[in-house]
Amino acid sequence: MGLVVQKFGGTSVGTIERIKNTAKRVIAEKKKGNDVIVVVSAMGKTTDQLVSLAKELSPYPSKREMDMLLSTGEQVTISLLAIALAEAGYEAISLTGWQAGILTENVHSNARILNIDQMRIQQYLKENRIVVVAGFQGINDHNEITTLGRGGSDTTAVALAAALHADKCMIYTDVTGVFTSDPRYIPSARKLSAISYDEMLELANLGAGVLHSRAVEFAKNYKVPLEVCSSMEEESGTIIEEEVQVEKGLVVRGVAFEDEITRITVFGLKNKITNLSGIFTSLANNNIDVDIIIQNHTVGENPYLSFTIKHEDLRDTTQLLEAKQGELGFDHFEYESGLAKVSIIGSGMISNPGVAAKMFDCLTRNDIQIKMVSTSEIKVSTVIEESHMIKAAQSLHTTFELDVVEQGVS
Amino acid sequence: MGLVVQKFGGTSVGTIERIKNTAKRVIAEKKKGNDVIVVVSAMGKTTDQLVSLAKELSPYPSKREMDMLLSTGEQVTISLLAIALAEAGYEAISLTGWQAGILTENVHSNARILNIDQMRIQQYLKENRIVVVAGFQGINDHNEITTLGRGGSDTTAVALAAALHADKCMIYTDVTGVFTSDPRYIPSARKLSAISYDEMLELANLGAGVLHSRAVEFAKNYKVPLEVCSSMEEESGTIIEEEVQVEKGLVVRGVAFEDEITRITVFGLKNKITNLSGIFTSLANNNIDVDIIIQNHTVGENPYLSFTIKHEDLRDTTQLLEAKQGELGFDHFEYESGLAKVSIIGSGMISNPGVAAKMFDCLTRNDIQIKMVSTSEIKVSTVIEESHMIKAAQSLHTTFELDVVEQGVS
Repeated sequence: MGLVVQKFGGTSVGTIERIKNTAKRVIAEKKKGNDVIVVVSAMGKTTDQLVSLAKELSPYPSKREMDMLLSTGEQVTISLLAIALAEAGYEAISLTGWQAGILTENVHSNARILNIDQMRIQQYLKENRIVVVAGFQGINDHNEITTLGRGGSDTTAVALAAALHADKCMIYTDVTGVFTSDPRYIPSARKLSAISYDEMLELANLGAGVLHSRAVEFAKNYKVPLEVCSSMEEESGTIIEEEVQVEKGLVVRGVAFEDEITRITVFGLKNKITNLSGIFTSLANNNIDVDIIIQNHTVGENPYLSFTIKHEDLRDTTQLLEAKQGELGFDHFEYESGLAKVSIIGSGMISNPGVAAKMFDCLTRNDIQIKMVSTSEIKVSTVIEESHMIKAAQSLHTTFELDVVEQGVS
Repeated sequence: MGLVVQKFGGTSVGTIERIKNTAKRVIAEKKKGNDVIVVVSAMGKTTDQLVSLAKELSPYPSKREMDMLLSTGEQVTISLLAIALAEAGYEAISLTGWQAGILTENVHSNARILNIDQMRIQQYLKENRIVVVAGFQGINDHNEITTLGRGGSDTTAVALAAALHADKCMIYTDVTGVFTSDPRYIPSARKLSAISYDEMLELANLGAGVLHSRAVEFAKNYKVPLEVCSSMEEESGTIIEEEVQVEKGLVVRGVAFEDEITRITVFGLKNKITNLSGIFTSLANNNIDVDIIIQNHTVGENPYLSFTIKHEDLRDTTQLLEAKQGELGFDHFEYESGLAKVSIIGSGMISNPGVAAKMFDCLTRNDIQIKMVSTSEIKVSTVIEESHMIKAAQSLHTTFELDVVEQGVS
């Protein structure tokens, strides 16, 4: 029939038993008459263990050597899964990133895929073999092994699905799909049967953790039909596609939240466009992710600039700002830790101007002070005290009627 | 000054501490002003652990997938050692087998090196970097990862030393050199300061275990100066070279022994040359190593054929002979397990016809029955009861004066 790309994360291949179980999932898809490409991550905590080994030798190991080290994790999994498939009577072949023709930028630890040389995979598919590809890794044009960063295996799967025009890309994970909110904290969260790329992108960016945002972007750009489903349970997952039928009135489709946010405020920034870009260029060059940015620039007033970072980047950020104070041209800066970001997401929001107001009203009624606000066409994010995060998320989940209604039936 | 290839086995890189220690050894060589290429094996028991994982999935995993799996072991070590060297302030770069241009036959699990594309290594050496190469692995002309079999890292080191005309190839191991016999069983065994390639080859083939025979052959063919030394202790090792000065009268330079030998005897073999070659071709095709072969072929008598195998190959061998009895044309076969091989080795033997007689006399005086004998120009091997193996080796070690005299001072 068609071509299906299946991706299994570290938990789904964490033990020999789970690898056998994953092989069954792959065989079930093959038995439907499909060609199958399987993308796998490293087993369980392998990547973390390898990182620990390296850190015992050096606090800042070279990224090039880390890529060399970490890429072994997926290579172990692909061979074991291919062995499991062969043992079950199915012809399978494993391919590392470079063997699968996954060409990336000349960047280590966080490279983007530039192109896929499909020749070898196509040949094996023609021979009716199941092709097992190492996720998370590629090769650059200097024949160096590169890796794609966090969630890179998702990106590998989507990129392969796009390049080979797969009919479906299935992301198997340890949850059963995409939820209206994180069910570990919001017990009334419900699984969505479908969600749009853009909504998923916002959820991914907001730390929902189910799918990496780069993978969703890739899927959106190449219109790859995605399905997120459980590798453990036999139930349908969440389909991610271009247009999703939304029940009338359901403008908000998810509530996302993320803790350990720190707000930096820079005061007395000289009113030059180069100063502003200078700060964010410096931060980016040091791999510090900046999220919400607010600039207050009124005539006659000395402008200030606020932005949020992850708490783990605080030390690097303050060191950088201190070192570059003169060059960047500002008076002083302050920071506030212990913050959280709570956001509502939904494509329907764009035609419903009252949504943000309803959100602020809900938070105010719960005595939650809003410290920052950022909006896009399909999301409103607020920064609040970390201690109020769950309460805020739960209240918003109820306010926007996500507790009760079956969502996004497509 | 020159170019030195250093090889460190699994024990020498078995822990983070040992990797740091190995880095010191490498740096010491670099500090002498040499260019340095380091070849490393997988950490400690990694390879065995990976084999166990695969065996949990399949009793007979595909060799191609096993190469994919096992080659990750060395890849982990090279990156960690490169990180350790960088942390100590030395520019280092790790290379997998395929990155180092190690081209092999199209065979999995036991491939021979065909050629080395030196371009990349030469470039890095020019840049004054320490090059860390994954041992045991290569790539064939289908871009498949291959491995070189047991002791393959030794072969990688010697092959690199040969291709790049290194001044020395140092094999660091968990013993301090090559001994007159195995010191674990023969307490009076002494370290040889030098030994010839041919003598080392016989010792390697006889299971002395210090160096893989394929590596020694390679070194002999390309006249690579080898030194076996300890990765733990600061003492000089054993030099392996073309000609070794031998003290007058010291015709025997080592006593080797190996247990778990089984003798197969085939009776009533039809007197056709094709039958004899048929048996050994069949055994070779099934990866059964045959060692000593004795054929008794007297006119008028029905000839018989005896050969020895490793005990672990007994089941495969009997199944094969049973299956091919008709085709190979023999009456029946018998086997005897619980045997051992004890050998004396020395280049001086060739001009001393009394050596074999002295050996047999020594064994007879110790009431040890000799079941088979095989001789070459530099060795005499006997097959005896396994229970007498250590006694035989110790007696021979004393008889040939290996206990007391400093050996092979070059």
